[in-house]
Amino acid sequence: MRVGMIGLGFMGSGMAANLLKGGIDLTVNDILPEKVERAVSLGARAAGSVGALVERVDVVLASLPSVEVCRQVFLGPGGVIEHARAGQVLVDHSTVDLVASRECAEAAAAKGAGFLDAPVSGGPKGAEEGTLSIMVGGERAAFETARPVFDLMGTNVRHMGGSGSGTAMKLMNQLLVSVHTCAAAEAFLLAERAGLDVQTAADVLHVSWGGSTILERNAPIVKRREFAGSGAPVRLFVKDLGILTKLGRDLGIALPMSNLAQELINETSETFGDDYDVSAPFLVLEKRSGG
Amino acid sequence: MRVGMIGLGFMGSGMAANLLKGGIDLTVNDILPEKVERAVSLGARAAGSVGALVERVDVVLASLPSVEVCRQVFLGPGGVIEHARAGQVLVDHSTVDLVASRECAEAAAAKGAGFLDAPVSGGPKGAEEGTLSIMVGGERAAFETARPVFDLMGTNVRHMGGSGSGTAMKLMNQLLVSVHTCAAAEAFLLAERAGLDVQTAADVLHVSWGGSTILERNAPIVKRREFAGSGAPVRLFVKDLGILTKLGRDLGIALPMSNLAQELINETSETFGDDYDVSAPFLVLEKRSGG
Repeated sequence: MRVGMIGLGFMGSGMAANLLKGGIDLTVNDILPEKVERAVSLGARAAGSVGALVERVDVVLASLPSVEVCRQVFLGPGGVIEHARAGQVLVDHSTVDLVASRECAEAAAAKGAGFLDAPVSGGPKGAEEGTLSIMVGGERAAFETARPVFDLMGTNVRHMGGSGSGTAMKLMNQLLVSVHTCAAAEAFLLAERAGLDVQTAADVLHVSWGGSTILERNAPIVKRREFAGSGAPVRLFVKDLGILTKLGRDLGIALPMSNLAQELINETSETFGDDYDVSAPFLVLEKRSGG
Repeated sequence: MRVGMIGLGFMGSGMAANLLKGGIDLTVNDILPEKVERAVSLGARAAGSVGALVERVDVVLASLPSVEVCRQVFLGPGGVIEHARAGQVLVDHSTVDLVASRECAEAAAAKGAGFLDAPVSGGPKGAEEGTLSIMVGGERAAFETARPVFDLMGTNVRHMGGSGSGTAMKLMNQLLVSVHTCAAAEAFLLAERAGLDVQTAADVLHVSWGGSTILERNAPIVKRREFAGSGAPVRLFVKDLGILTKLGRDLGIALPMSNLAQELINETSETFGDDYDVSAPFLVLEKRSGG
């Protein structure tokens, strides 16, 4: 199977490396020549354009930084769909909105191609180690075709349902991470002010109803105050909560907890920098509490 | 060791039964005669007053429904502290505020008695099965004295630190449960509106960063819409979030996420009834979303 990868950023470069390790015939494209050169040095072919890439492969993967870039790369002139042919499977690994996912699926169907929304979770570390969670929406037949490719990049690959359900699943995860990280910040602040050790408290909560994956992850970061530099920077959540808010509006859903978490995360990004770790809303609350 | 139990409600009655099973010489007191009679039928002695109970035992346990009742039973005339003697250990298993816990500790110390704030988590089921989490604050020596008694009632017994730290730990847990249950409600609503199965989504989140103990617990309840009747009714959280809000004010801590969760939980209690399960903020959000 010939595979193409469009976008060789933090995520795409790690994913491409694992495909090459798995023996895939891989063609790559990126706007930055040095990213392409690095993938070529690992065994990939370079395609000079999105169109050239699409024409050369059976499965097209894309990992792109924003909804706007995704729309342009898939739906724009000279884009993926324009060059797609019947029987191809087109996969978007970016986190986009439901509307974009469904528009791409319709446009692909009109050319006889399959389209999967397949956002990933696990960060650059998961991409590099091939341990991503991949949440996939779209036709099951297209999913089965692409599945061997997904299995080279992730350990937790799930078909969630029809078109858009991978995207919805990813946004649910981002919603929960965002609210949980703000809740953990309040709990840690309470612990510190009441004279409890943050790590001991997190250990007790782990076996109580208050436990969460994020609470456990954040405890040592908060305890050592190592908020700068991170594999999970607030800017990713600034972006994804923007998408989530729009989705809430489109679907007419009240999301008051997410909206408040979004405010705290945006304030963290503006006050401390968008590369600060997603646990850093702790600093915003500490400041508000005279710390 | 002779032990006394004051308060034989949902929690205290289960705890008393496990002490009797463990062969403890137990004396009980409750304002409701039928509660006392039931404990006596299991092997307990009855004390006609709090004072008579305190005078007969080495370790006094109390499990009471509110901060006000706790203050009265411990600090009021004819109460526990008035009758306490040097060397006794007094334990409050109720969820109260830090100020009350510390006042009791000081008053006990003046009589030469030890005081432990030791709130529990696990609900009536945990009390009955002897699988409670018991979070203990106070002098370590007093903790070591009472520990064999705690081990008959709980499987996760932890000394958290000085006076008030058991209470602070319990309030942290309630904070997280409250925010997580509202976050889970938003996520489940998003799942339903986007056409995802709630249980499948919860399973994926369980192995992603978005996972929480409450999300996992609530998923089947929300899926089957079984919100009425519960071992974890919203009224417990209405009470504990009231205590938490006061604590936040006393310590000067900003708790915006908890405050918002409190609003949603109070609205759940007022709209659907205070015996509804703690997962029922889902219904409030569904209503706000035109459901």
